[in-house]
Amino acid sequence: MPHDILVLTEPELKRAVALDLDAIDVVESAFAALASGKVVMPPILSMEIPGANAEVDVKTAYIPGFDGFAIKVSPGFFDNPRIGLPSLNGLMILFSAKTGLVEALLLDNGFLTDVRTAAAGAVAARHLAPSVVTTAGVMGTGVQARLQMFAAHQVRPFERVLVWGRDATKAAACASDIAGHLGIDARAETDPARLVAESQLVVTTTPARAPILKADWLHPGLHVTAMGSDQEGKNEIDPAALARADLYVADRVSQCEKLGELAAAIGAGVWNGKTPAELGEIVAGAKTGRTDDSQVTICDLTGTGAQDTAIATFARQQALTAGAGTTIQS
Amino acid sequence: MPHDILVLTEPELKRAVALDLDAIDVVESAFAALASGKVVMPPILSMEIPGANAEVDVKTAYIPGFDGFAIKVSPGFFDNPRIGLPSLNGLMILFSAKTGLVEALLLDNGFLTDVRTAAAGAVAARHLAPSVVTTAGVMGTGVQARLQMFAAHQVRPFERVLVWGRDATKAAACASDIAGHLGIDARAETDPARLVAESQLVVTTTPARAPILKADWLHPGLHVTAMGSDQEGKNEIDPAALARADLYVADRVSQCEKLGELAAAIGAGVWNGKTPAELGEIVAGAKTGRTDDSQVTICDLTGTGAQDTAIATFARQQALTAGAGTTIQS
Repeated sequence: MPHDILVLTEPELKRAVALDLDAIDVVESAFAALASGKVVMPPILSMEIPGANAEVDVKTAYIPGFDGFAIKVSPGFFDNPRIGLPSLNGLMILFSAKTGLVEALLLDNGFLTDVRTAAAGAVAARHLAPSVVTTAGVMGTGVQARLQMFAAHQVRPFERVLVWGRDATKAAACASDIAGHLGIDARAETDPARLVAESQLVVTTTPARAPILKADWLHPGLHVTAMGSDQEGKNEIDPAALARADLYVADRVSQCEKLGELAAAIGAGVWNGKTPAELGEIVAGAKTGRTDDSQVTICDLTGTGAQDTAIATFARQQALTAGAGTTIQS
Repeated sequence: MPHDILVLTEPELKRAVALDLDAIDVVESAFAALASGKVVMPPILSMEIPGANAEVDVKTAYIPGFDGFAIKVSPGFFDNPRIGLPSLNGLMILFSAKTGLVEALLLDNGFLTDVRTAAAGAVAARHLAPSVVTTAGVMGTGVQARLQMFAAHQVRPFERVLVWGRDATKAAACASDIAGHLGIDARAETDPARLVAESQLVVTTTPARAPILKADWLHPGLHVTAMGSDQEGKNEIDPAALARADLYVADRVSQCEKLGELAAAIGAGVWNGKTPAELGEIVAGAKTGRTDDSQVTICDLTGTGAQDTAIATFARQQALTAGAGTTIQS
């Protein structure tokens, strides 16, 4: 049955979609919907490509109240940088939730994932960080290190950013980008313990497989968002930190038990066995978040299909408003 | 990273891809690869849309030796016919198996699934039907009833087709289409027992949830391909028939145990508990197929991601040869 399909390229999407409060709000609404229990979010389909150091993940979610649902395909080919290509690519496909017809092809090469992942960090900061954040710290020096700070600054307008990374040159470049973009002070910090000590909000954005943030560094009035772990075996936060924090929050418990910091804490035998709160439950007011500014809170973001459906719907709307993209019939 | 993506619409694909021996051969090669044990084929991602009588399935497979891998998204919105739309839609996305970049978008609305499903029926007939088939019977009157006969005729050039369906008008229309397309005798048969009795090859193509082909109807020199069951609860073949046949063959044992005729036989407690042969193992010569023309054989096709990767690769190649499609950069 021939019907119109909107095709949006990466440059078109980058012009139409900003990492702004509207994007943060739409991702927040997806988390709130997750808490309603009415979202359908199947387990991630994951396929390893043998001999290629590569993996492909497919995520989706149906959210009541959204006109469409997205299917996101994220190939990660980790030897690509050797031939001058980025590791992460992929696209999102937006389907009508009423007819199943393809409505839009978002050829974003991972851009929308970057946006929705950073937006989730801002949602976590909005609901869990102390009310006043003067210094934010970020661990890791990649795209998400930058975007997490850009997003979080919109909900906690901190005055200073500290950047830690294994590579001092990359940390300096990241700090420089953040300072330029936000117009605030940002510098590399070589000592991760000092970075945490001086920050009220810390975001970890690395693919670490051994903790880079120690439990002993936790201090009153700290919120940590760990967004690097999205696969079994990854681990950024000392398992003991999860037990010691006043509040640990998962984006999706069933995923964090397998892929997140929670998996590492369970594996280390230090988790208390209770079912943690989900970020959406705190957004929706169904569970209690931070109750005073001196608490220590940790949020574990593994990435959800609900965010993909939210950002794809948002991107299509923004593109239509801007008159962007090409329509094809098929 | 901007790169070229070939976009093919349904009309372009229909012009470029025929259900011919080349298509059958490429699907056969995918089955042979499955038998090698080196194919990576994750379980199907399946999502129900609540309140919409709808389901979305995502299939994929990596096949060594194929340059790309397909991800297929198949939405089934079963109330669509009420508003004049087909129930089944969807698309395939072809990715480079070397870089993970999107190489082609095949906006086929299910056409390529139709082709690869019918081609699998021909592979089953080629390897399992008696060497001479004079009459073929088909149960069901939809698109696959027609395509299964078109495909099977290329490997067993039968002289006559019998069509059974619950709706006599539809059965007559289906028989008329088959006669016109193949240039042979085809007629509706109201008695399914007689259809089976007079056929050497029977293909069942229905969404039945209770058997439409009875074990008592099996006769020497019969091959049955059941391709209608692709979901839990569907069942076309009397469970006793699987136990009684000389040979039962699955397209993929792990799927047929859940979704296929095998699931019904196991559920009914009549399966012998042995691991059945897979079609690919017979194609590859790793297991024995039909050994004489008087045997009774049954093949259970639930549909595999390997077929999708094969047909998507084939379609891209055919389109490139024909100069079809549009290239976009993203």
